[in-house]
Amino acid sequence: MTLSLDPAQAADLLAVAEALAEAARTETLLHFRADGGLAAENKLATGFDPVTIADRAAEHAMRGILARLRPQDGIWGEEYGVQRGESGLTWVLDPVDGTRSYMSGTPTWGVLIALSEERPEGPGQPLLGIIDQPFIGERFIGGAGVARVTGPMGTHALKARGPRALSEATIFTTYPEVGQPAEGAAFARLSAQCRLTRYGTDCYAYALVAAGQIDLVVEAGLQPYDVGAPIAVIEAAGGIVTNWQGGPAWGGGQVIAAANPEIHAAALAVLNA
Amino acid sequence: MTLSLDPAQAADLLAVAEALAEAARTETLLHFRADGGLAAENKLATGFDPVTIADRAAEHAMRGILARLRPQDGIWGEEYGVQRGESGLTWVLDPVDGTRSYMSGTPTWGVLIALSEERPEGPGQPLLGIIDQPFIGERFIGGAGVARVTGPMGTHALKARGPRALSEATIFTTYPEVGQPAEGAAFARLSAQCRLTRYGTDCYAYALVAAGQIDLVVEAGLQPYDVGAPIAVIEAAGGIVTNWQGGPAWGGGQVIAAANPEIHAAALAVLNA
Repeated sequence: MTLSLDPAQAADLLAVAEALAEAARTETLLHFRADGGLAAENKLATGFDPVTIADRAAEHAMRGILARLRPQDGIWGEEYGVQRGESGLTWVLDPVDGTRSYMSGTPTWGVLIALSEERPEGPGQPLLGIIDQPFIGERFIGGAGVARVTGPMGTHALKARGPRALSEATIFTTYPEVGQPAEGAAFARLSAQCRLTRYGTDCYAYALVAAGQIDLVVEAGLQPYDVGAPIAVIEAAGGIVTNWQGGPAWGGGQVIAAANPEIHAAALAVLNA
Repeated sequence: MTLSLDPAQAADLLAVAEALAEAARTETLLHFRADGGLAAENKLATGFDPVTIADRAAEHAMRGILARLRPQDGIWGEEYGVQRGESGLTWVLDPVDGTRSYMSGTPTWGVLIALSEERPEGPGQPLLGIIDQPFIGERFIGGAGVARVTGPMGTHALKARGPRALSEATIFTTYPEVGQPAEGAAFARLSAQCRLTRYGTDCYAYALVAAGQIDLVVEAGLQPYDVGAPIAVIEAAGGIVTNWQGGPAWGGGQVIAAANPEIHAAALAVLNA
C-alpha cells in the first residue's frame, strides 16, 4: 500500500464511507421489488428500468455527499464517470452491483464503495471499502484498521477462513460461463477440483469470503468499480484478491478472491495450468 | 383441492404453521455462519456438520409443537421421516431447504412448511404453506385465504406476475445441470428462449415467483418436502406449479413453477419439445 492513514483520518473517512452507504441504501430500496405496474409506469415515464433509476439516484446522492464532505477527492463512478481530484484519493462507486439480481428481486446485489489511491490510469490500491446489502440490512466494512460486518445477527469481526485443500473448498462465480470460452474452461478445471461450486451471488460472494464462509470467488470481465470494495474488505479480513496472474486486481478484468494465500496459490496454479 | 377449511380452522392452522416457522427460525439461526472453529468442534463432538445439526434441531422443535397442538395430524419430515395421522392432514417439513447455501453462508436457503392432504402414498395437495428465510427475517405465507410476505420492507400481499413472452421472462434453477442429462438439455432449450437465467437460489426462487419478481422456476429430482410449501405459496399468489407433464407436483420429481397459466403453457411446450 503506497498510502496510509493516521487514526483520525481513518475515522473521518470511514464516517464518510458509511454516510455514502446510508444514502445509497435509501435510494436503492425505493425501487427494489417495485411491482410490475409501477415498474412499467416508471419505464414509460423515463425510458429506464427501475434498476437504472436506482443506480443513478444512488450515485447522484453519493456524489452530493462527496461534494460537501470531500471535494478534494476524485470520483470513479459506474453511472456518472470520472471526476479527477487533488488529494491523491478517489472514491470508487458502484451503486447497484448485480443489476440482474436487483431486477429479479434477489438480495445478493450490493452497493460497492471504495476509497482508493488515484492513479493516472484509474483507481489503484483501495484503502477502505464497503459492501452493503440494503434489503438484508447488512454492511461489510474493511480497511483503515477495521474489518467488521453489521447485520441481522449484530456486529462481528470479519475473518477469512484458514487454509484447506481445494477438494474441501467452496468456490463461487456469478455465471457458469464466467467470461470468454477460454476463461470458462479455466474456471471449469478449477471448479472440478473443488468440493462445492455455487453460482449467482454477485458481489455478495466476496462478502462471504471475508466472513469466513467460503474459500474462493473467480470472475472475469470485471470493472474497477466491481473490485475496489471487495479488495478492501477481503484484505482487511486476512484474505487475498489478485488478477489471474497474481498481480493487482484493482483494474478489474480477471479476478480471483481467496480466503488465504495457500488456497490462492493452489487455485492460481489450476487456472493457469 | 379435495379439502377445504372454514375460516376458524384456517386461522388456527395458520397460527400453528407460524409457530413452527418461529421455532425453526430460532434453531436454524443458532448454527448459521458458525465460525470455522466452532463448526469444526461441533463436527468433532457429534460427527455432524452444523447444517445437519440445525436441520435436526429445527425438525425436532417443530415436531414437539405438533405433538402438543396437532397430535391428530400426520408428519412428513425430511430428517425424521413419516408419522401417519388420523385427521386426513399431514405437515410436510423441510427444516433447511438449500443445505449448500446454508453451508456457504448464503441467505437463500429456507424453512419449508406445508399442511397437505394425507394420501396413502404421501402428501397430496397442500392447503397452506410457508417459505421462511430466517436470516433476512422474511416469511412468505400462502393458502387458507392468505397470500402475504412479511420482511424487511413490512407486510405486503403476494401477487405473481401477469403474462409476458418467454423472450421477456426471467427463469431460475439451482444448478445449471438441473438433473439428468436429458433434463439438463430440456432446461437449456427453455433457458435459451428466456431473457435472463439465474442460478443458485434454492427455495427462495419460488418465493420470488409468488412475489411477482420472476416468471419461472424449473427443477428436477425434488422430494415432496421440497415442493409442498412452494405450491401453496405460489398458488395463493395466482401462479401455477406442476410437474413437467402438467400434472400435480406435490410428489416432487420434475417441477415447474410459473407466474401464470400462459407462461406455464409456453414453457411446458419447450421443455417437452
